[in-house]
Amino acid sequence: MRALIFVLLIFLSFLCAEEGMFPITEIDKLDLKKIGIELTAEQIFSENKVSLSDAIVQLGGCTGSFISADGLILTNHHCAFRAIQNASTPENDYLTNGFVAHKREQEFPAKGYTVRITEQVLDVSDQVLQAIKKIKDPIERQKTIEKINKQIVKQAETDHPGLRASVSEMFPGKTYYLFLYTYLKDVRLVYAPPRSIGEFGGEVDNWEWPRHTGDFSLMRAYVAPDGSPAEYGPQNVPYQPKTYLKVAAEGVEEGDRVFILGYPGRTYRHRTSAFLSFEYEVRMPFVVGWYQWQINLMNSLSKNNAARALKFSAWIKGLANTEKNYRGKLQGIRRIGLIEKKKTEERNIQNFIETNNLKEYKNVLADIYQIFNNTRQSYLRDLLLSYFGRSAILPAVARTLVQAANERQKPDMERESSFMERNFNRTQTYTLLRLKYFDEQVDPLIVNELLKKISNLPEEQQIAPLTSIFKLDEDFSKAPEIVKQAYQNTRLTDANFVKSCFNKTPDELKALNDPILNWMIALQSAYDDLKEKQKKRRGELTRLRALWLEAKKAYLKKDFIPDANGTFRMTFGLIEGYAPADAVYKSPITTDRGILEKTTGQSPFDTPEKLLSLLKAKQFGRFVSKTVGTLPVGILYSCDTTGGNSGSPVLNAKGELVGLNIDRTFEATINDYAWNHQYSRSIGVDIRYILFLLKYYSNADQILKEIGVE
Amino acid sequence: MRALIFVLLIFLSFLCAEEGMFPITEIDKLDLKKIGIELTAEQIFSENKVSLSDAIVQLGGCTGSFISADGLILTNHHCAFRAIQNASTPENDYLTNGFVAHKREQEFPAKGYTVRITEQVLDVSDQVLQAIKKIKDPIERQKTIEKINKQIVKQAETDHPGLRASVSEMFPGKTYYLFLYTYLKDVRLVYAPPRSIGEFGGEVDNWEWPRHTGDFSLMRAYVAPDGSPAEYGPQNVPYQPKTYLKVAAEGVEEGDRVFILGYPGRTYRHRTSAFLSFEYEVRMPFVVGWYQWQINLMNSLSKNNAARALKFSAWIKGLANTEKNYRGKLQGIRRIGLIEKKKTEERNIQNFIETNNLKEYKNVLADIYQIFNNTRQSYLRDLLLSYFGRSAILPAVARTLVQAANERQKPDMERESSFMERNFNRTQTYTLLRLKYFDEQVDPLIVNELLKKISNLPEEQQIAPLTSIFKLDEDFSKAPEIVKQAYQNTRLTDANFVKSCFNKTPDELKALNDPILNWMIALQSAYDDLKEKQKKRRGELTRLRALWLEAKKAYLKKDFIPDANGTFRMTFGLIEGYAPADAVYKSPITTDRGILEKTTGQSPFDTPEKLLSLLKAKQFGRFVSKTVGTLPVGILYSCDTTGGNSGSPVLNAKGELVGLNIDRTFEATINDYAWNHQYSRSIGVDIRYILFLLKYYSNADQILKEIGVE
Repeated sequence: MRALIFVLLIFLSFLCAEEGMFPITEIDKLDLKKIGIELTAEQIFSENKVSLSDAIVQLGGCTGSFISADGLILTNHHCAFRAIQNASTPENDYLTNGFVAHKREQEFPAKGYTVRITEQVLDVSDQVLQAIKKIKDPIERQKTIEKINKQIVKQAETDHPGLRASVSEMFPGKTYYLFLYTYLKDVRLVYAPPRSIGEFGGEVDNWEWPRHTGDFSLMRAYVAPDGSPAEYGPQNVPYQPKTYLKVAAEGVEEGDRVFILGYPGRTYRHRTSAFLSFEYEVRMPFVVGWYQWQINLMNSLSKNNAARALKFSAWIKGLANTEKNYRGKLQGIRRIGLIEKKKTEERNIQNFIETNNLKEYKNVLADIYQIFNNTRQSYLRDLLLSYFGRSAILPAVARTLVQAANERQKPDMERESSFMERNFNRTQTYTLLRLKYFDEQVDPLIVNELLKKISNLPEEQQIAPLTSIFKLDEDFSKAPEIVKQAYQNTRLTDANFVKSCFNKTPDELKALNDPILNWMIALQSAYDDLKEKQKKRRGELTRLRALWLEAKKAYLKKDFIPDANGTFRMTFGLIEGYAPADAVYKSPITTDRGILEKTTGQSPFDTPEKLLSLLKAKQFGRFVSKTVGTLPVGILYSCDTTGGNSGSPVLNAKGELVGLNIDRTFEATINDYAWNHQYSRSIGVDIRYILFLLKYYSNADQILKEIGVE
Repeated sequence: MRALIFVLLIFLSFLCAEEGMFPITEIDKLDLKKIGIELTAEQIFSENKVSLSDAIVQLGGCTGSFISADGLILTNHHCAFRAIQNASTPENDYLTNGFVAHKREQEFPAKGYTVRITEQVLDVSDQVLQAIKKIKDPIERQKTIEKINKQIVKQAETDHPGLRASVSEMFPGKTYYLFLYTYLKDVRLVYAPPRSIGEFGGEVDNWEWPRHTGDFSLMRAYVAPDGSPAEYGPQNVPYQPKTYLKVAAEGVEEGDRVFILGYPGRTYRHRTSAFLSFEYEVRMPFVVGWYQWQINLMNSLSKNNAARALKFSAWIKGLANTEKNYRGKLQGIRRIGLIEKKKTEERNIQNFIETNNLKEYKNVLADIYQIFNNTRQSYLRDLLLSYFGRSAILPAVARTLVQAANERQKPDMERESSFMERNFNRTQTYTLLRLKYFDEQVDPLIVNELLKKISNLPEEQQIAPLTSIFKLDEDFSKAPEIVKQAYQNTRLTDANFVKSCFNKTPDELKALNDPILNWMIALQSAYDDLKEKQKKRRGELTRLRALWLEAKKAYLKKDFIPDANGTFRMTFGLIEGYAPADAVYKSPITTDRGILEKTTGQSPFDTPEKLLSLLKAKQFGRFVSKTVGTLPVGILYSCDTTGGNSGSPVLNAKGELVGLNIDRTFEATINDYAWNHQYSRSIGVDIRYILFLLKYYSNADQILKEIGVE
């Protein structure tokens, strides 16, 4: 991996003990020795030598790592879930029974999966900032940023054939990096534990510690015989990564130093209290309520219907994951008084601005507040409009089709990203995948509920096309009948029909006269207005946030770590427990005891008999932890992670693999807004549990041999 | 207090570290010094001197203790709940706002409350056993036991005018004690914290540690000016107890020895695996499901209806309390493999019996198993029949009226206890109280659901009167209409009508031709048959259990502590934390930190503003714990308790008051079946939190003065 050097930050001091998802290009500014890491920065990441970072990849929305010379990748079970599910049949139910490829030929293609390897990182801030320098109008600014980014990407992909490029905003309105990636498209599944191990604890244990989930899987990247990326093909050969992680079969113990490399998604730590209180008071409570309503609906409709329950499980899982995450955030914001803390800091900064008469910053905070006050006026109407085109399946599909038809009238560079040629295939695939979740009972009930909420909006916020289509200005009882008729007459349940719609023009779509397509056609201008409004808002906020960060920097006299944005980061911490509540302490290594305690025989606590026997017999071989005296299962550490870090390797001081990151604690859902050593803990699978399962549960000796564990 | 000495047990050794609800008359066999208690057995309980036990009373189903020379009683908020609720009006809402009597005149009557003081304990085993010696028929045996007990009670009450008597079976079929009690009937409320303190955490925290509930209240017993028990009257004076507890304002710390005096309800530790697996596999899962259904129904019906929510709150609370308790038990039985353990022990005892050719015990276990096997055949039908006369309000009221009419045809001594003259008033009061919960939507839905379940029973288990009344042999859709009609035409919703029915004969009741009364009249013989069957079963089991215990005693070569049965007991333990699950440790003292953490502003976590201010200001005066360095709120200890111990005083090694028992942990719900030092923990309010609330929250200086805390 190679990176042009640029100066983004000066790490004068750490804000907190271990806060920070450090951009990988910046870690040479850390005192790694003092932290307790035995590698040099260059051994972890180097612009021109092979380093540890070359073993790290992106896989779907997750992180993964190479753990053998033959392109074997370790990632989470939940990251490989779709691949396992797609390959499962009633005869070969890999999801339920697990899967082991004892030979290379048995490895099967993980359809739709790609492995993304970061090849280069370039600072393109100058180019972006130059382009917007003179633009005052916020909406114009935002549009220009988007446009210039597309141009940079296009140029980079022309200059580096075979690589894909993307630009990431590190600090809004300030710094932009260009990332160049290799995409490997032939990915195959090598190993998956049974779902009852890989998902042990399910929704109940999601976001929870103590954890006993064997949430890991193994995949392998393949390339054409000449080493170039290629689609799946029998002639392909295992990819040879530049380097791979050494597995430390002895694991880690409490108090040990660990660090994590990966691709954390998004954090919002530099946002103002105006943003936070909007989230806390308005947006998150609405989403929690709306998701709970949908979850309850699906649960009650699938109570005595196993087939339906199976169909809904992934959908519910997605909703429940966000719902619980938001509940965790709401609790966290309240418990640590985060909004008040932010407000105090903002008052201090504002005083500093006033005292020093820094005119350009004087109104920044007030302006940000003004934007959020405006947003609050119509937030409910805007959210409902947005969910009307997203929550139920057929309206969501229709919305995508109408958008596609409109966007594809424009030149490629001017389209929304999802509808550019380079992404359009993926958009189609996702849409058709979504269609599989359609249920004729659930869908209209969701639409009805949204319409009821919309009809309760104040007069001036009513959405005209909906009022007229569903006669919302009359007795509400008419709407469900109209919805029912539409569902009876739509052709959108037919995947082939949907496929054919992707190539139609707006006029052609209109001519189909499909009732649900017609809803979205009628709403198109409302959505356009909403998008324009949001773009304007984002443009203004980008400019204001950049100014506010400048003021904060001047006040604090130091720089910050940029918010996570899906780019390559390093974070470090210790294997350590925490006290999540008064009189409660949770220690950092779980054991086989917990699996036996939790096992009820009912999903999600239905441990396979064979594993139960092994645990009861205490047949743990060399994988016993010295300190807990038995088989370790999960590990807890004070690393700073967020979504996207799923599947990240947990590394010891020597950079060897000791665990696999899978989740955060309930209290650490607030990581997205603030980090605190007291409660921010991430959760991993102990490498010894992984090795134990491979050796004793699955007898996968050839895999152990490949990764150097005999 | 005076007690005739009898030898029930020889405590050769303790079965477990601190297992045991020791009968108070037996504690002279304990090595109190070794345990770490600085009092002699005689100072705790004595047959002829005043002792600590004289400070302990029963109050409703709870325990209480005198804490001043003027009859001030400390008990739980949840034990005084009904009194507080009854006295509350919209203008003076003591339930919400709390209540402080700054002067004696302000103390108001706790209607329906009595204070029960144990005056004497006598062994009457000989008398009982003599009477049943020759009786082989189990039903006859059981009836004779009941009859002789009634005779003993009658004789004792004649011999001791003014006292009330009751006989308790200590070991089934083996030992029986006569208890003589004084009843004080003028009980008044002195202090109650606001519900948001006294019930802090509500259902969410019920059966849970860490706990932060200020679940205490103060009452006072009054007597006639001549010192005799009397009904409420303005001329009455405070009762002067023989002794009262000294309050230890310095509290306790982790590792300190504590003990508890009180009236634990029921335990089943000496039962067989046949009983346990019936409970585990059959009865508890049914009850959990049925209670959850009712809770869900009431929750959904009261979602947007505050008045209804209020009406249901106590009802739901009762159901939820049992439902969660049973869930705890089910988890506990599974986790510790209790049934398997019992089975192993039983196999060993059976082997011992066979080896030693102890003929009289040979078939005991098999016979017990046979009884439970028979019970299983019709358990669902029997449970449904029983709940049909209990779950919904009007059928329950009708059932009581029909029973009353029938029972009151018999001589007093032959009636069911509730319908004997001495108890009949109380039965009427309870019935009318229950009627207040009636809800016209909920009641018929409960009846319908039970009828649906009954109609799904196998043909041969159908209950003939229900089949005919509700046309269950036809299309089930007819039943709800019949139920609806009955509810429209019944007069049982009218309390005066119900009152008048209590004095009617069976024929007079029949002549009323009330549809819901008619249901119960039609079912009377089915209920009689069920009662007879249960009596027979109990008679057989009593005899077999006594034999089995003999065999067990011979095998183990030692005696046991009798199961709890609502009689006076002592239990001891340490202030100590526990590890309820892998990687989780809970420490034994909670603090103000937890109140702030849990407070959301929404019930049941809506701490009053004044308390929040005090906590934030850390204004704790002398009530800071030396070890946790802040205000202690709850304490946890390894004492052996069960329901009925609510309100028991927690005493330090010197016998001074350091806390108030309120609950057990979720893991300790299994106490009723087994005790284990690892998980059996009980929960109390720290005396320092009580004193802090009295002093700083309520400025109740006169109360503090009365209890000797300045």
